[in-house]
Amino acid sequence: MFELAVELIDETPALAIDWAVVSRNVAAMAALASERGVALRPHVKTHKLIPLAQLQVACGAVGVTVAKLNEAEAMAAGGISDVLVAYPVVGSSKLRRLLDLAASGINLAVALDSAPAALDLAIAARARSLVVPVLIEIDTGLRRCGVQSAAEALELARLADDQHGTSFAGIATHEGHAYATSGAEGLRQATEDAAGAMREVAQALEDAGLPAKTVSMGSSGTARFGIGLEGTTEFRPGTYVFNDRTQVALGAAAREECAAAIVATVVSRAVPGQAVIDAGSKVLTSDRMLVANPRPTFGELADDPDCEVVRMSEEHGILGGGAVERLAVGDRVAVLPNHICPVVNLFDSVRVLRAGNVERWPVDARGSV
Amino acid sequence: MFELAVELIDETPALAIDWAVVSRNVAAMAALASERGVALRPHVKTHKLIPLAQLQVACGAVGVTVAKLNEAEAMAAGGISDVLVAYPVVGSSKLRRLLDLAASGINLAVALDSAPAALDLAIAARARSLVVPVLIEIDTGLRRCGVQSAAEALELARLADDQHGTSFAGIATHEGHAYATSGAEGLRQATEDAAGAMREVAQALEDAGLPAKTVSMGSSGTARFGIGLEGTTEFRPGTYVFNDRTQVALGAAAREECAAAIVATVVSRAVPGQAVIDAGSKVLTSDRMLVANPRPTFGELADDPDCEVVRMSEEHGILGGGAVERLAVGDRVAVLPNHICPVVNLFDSVRVLRAGNVERWPVDARGSV
Repeated sequence: MFELAVELIDETPALAIDWAVVSRNVAAMAALASERGVALRPHVKTHKLIPLAQLQVACGAVGVTVAKLNEAEAMAAGGISDVLVAYPVVGSSKLRRLLDLAASGINLAVALDSAPAALDLAIAARARSLVVPVLIEIDTGLRRCGVQSAAEALELARLADDQHGTSFAGIATHEGHAYATSGAEGLRQATEDAAGAMREVAQALEDAGLPAKTVSMGSSGTARFGIGLEGTTEFRPGTYVFNDRTQVALGAAAREECAAAIVATVVSRAVPGQAVIDAGSKVLTSDRMLVANPRPTFGELADDPDCEVVRMSEEHGILGGGAVERLAVGDRVAVLPNHICPVVNLFDSVRVLRAGNVERWPVDARGSV
Repeated sequence: MFELAVELIDETPALAIDWAVVSRNVAAMAALASERGVALRPHVKTHKLIPLAQLQVACGAVGVTVAKLNEAEAMAAGGISDVLVAYPVVGSSKLRRLLDLAASGINLAVALDSAPAALDLAIAARARSLVVPVLIEIDTGLRRCGVQSAAEALELARLADDQHGTSFAGIATHEGHAYATSGAEGLRQATEDAAGAMREVAQALEDAGLPAKTVSMGSSGTARFGIGLEGTTEFRPGTYVFNDRTQVALGAAAREECAAAIVATVVSRAVPGQAVIDAGSKVLTSDRMLVANPRPTFGELADDPDCEVVRMSEEHGILGGGAVERLAVGDRVAVLPNHICPVVNLFDSVRVLRAGNVERWPVDARGSV
């Protein structure tokens, strides 16, 4: 894996993307959603790349999901015409940017979970003669965002629907808590339970005369169990385009389906039993594995999984285990990270391996606002 | 703390810098080094800001320390004329960039710990009729980089001095392992032990006819004990300009000496007992506290230390404890992070509070290469 990247990339640390693997991952998820009759709306927070979003849409995605307005703006600039902002848009400056996008003619919806967020959005949209579709976020167990009951969902849906400026479009959840369960069976059960909770809310809304046109859930780790569960209309996986150690540990991806690796250089062998590479926490991030019983390591070599990043400083990754003794100062290695999403967000550009060449692509939506 | 930032900054998440506090921190460290007769060479990896490096030099720093060539290039562009690259420069592309800087006329030295790194540097420098001063990195306990004995240091010093293209300039260590010791006494002891180890190496080098002109150590956490220890000539603290929860926990800074905070907005209160802010791991990083017995939290409110970031997703920070119940959707908060250095590296710009105004400054050396 990544032999070509290790050979061709001129400077390290670099983030290498194997486009053949990406293409297969994108096609496989699109096929699964198509087979099971569910709309696919991938989350682009993982890759933040316009061309990759375009590929996802070309393969059948109905649109994309974003967390931040800079992601939405980049996607719109790239011609993506249907965007769900799966994050409450709060504050006048952010609302202005959101409505600028809505006014540009793309289909734009927002997920939120509070009356203040819904009302401020409605007031701002009304002032510009716009109507923004709203999804009510439901907490199905992650305990992050999301209303806590069907009654709360109904109250907020009614509020959104009653206001000029917003319309009630459906409900959404992210079943990320399933990652912390034990094994495939725990993951499957948590995913099914989340879908069940969504069905209950949808039923209550329908009974009240406010049917949820969209019932949206999704994550890459739960995709194989969650895509097409009864009552859901849409699925929003993100990480599956690249995968990482966490997705492999979850059983959601084979190791060969990891499409992104950090290419690094061995800079020191002075301390016995270890090698130091030029990829530390400012490259790999300090994210632990998002699964039960995480091993506190921060990466593994693509061609030697037993050789792991056992410690880090900001610019130093300490490799230990496996065949670490074979490494010499100046050697290049490819590292699979625990969690690829925040790694992409650290790079201004990625190096895309395609047809035997390396191309440099900007990370179009890097950053935090 | 940061009341003005919370009030004035238009969009979140934003990284706010209180310039009055920065100025005091810079002046205090400069005064300490001056009193104790040691050269101060601050590490700019913390801030990556040209104007702040200029302030450090204006306050008496002999130059700066960098980890990456993009940091060195930014500093040179900002008129900083003396730069130590405290990191092995490995690979032809990186050596070319290093020598471009050396050729531009600034004083540039490199710390390294291996014969391959020393030889490649010498060959590349010789080809351009340049001579690069080399510091030999010594491992005084961090077990990261650094030769393991005085004998190894002597061998490498001799190699560097014998080559056309390099000259032996001294020895360097980073006593970061002191952070993991217990309490102030452990920190002091580890710092003194590191200085003692450096004296032994320096003595062996002098006995062999290769006196170390520079004997460099340093970190912010150890500065109060380490600056001016016998036999050292230079100290390289970084984090002290901003400080963070780790420096406060180490006793190296008072809470009021924290000069950087993340301004965030409450976006959800739907889950009882918590508030969600728009600063998660893509803003705060997943860094734990770099001290013994770390609490696994990721930040605390500047005006309510008991209200902490207890969990995170990429774009969500979950606040719990303290007066969290007072928070409403739309409220702004200022968060002190565990470790400020990688946080700065996530932002394209910082918002500098100075004389009652907010200025936006680019993070000149953001990124990884």
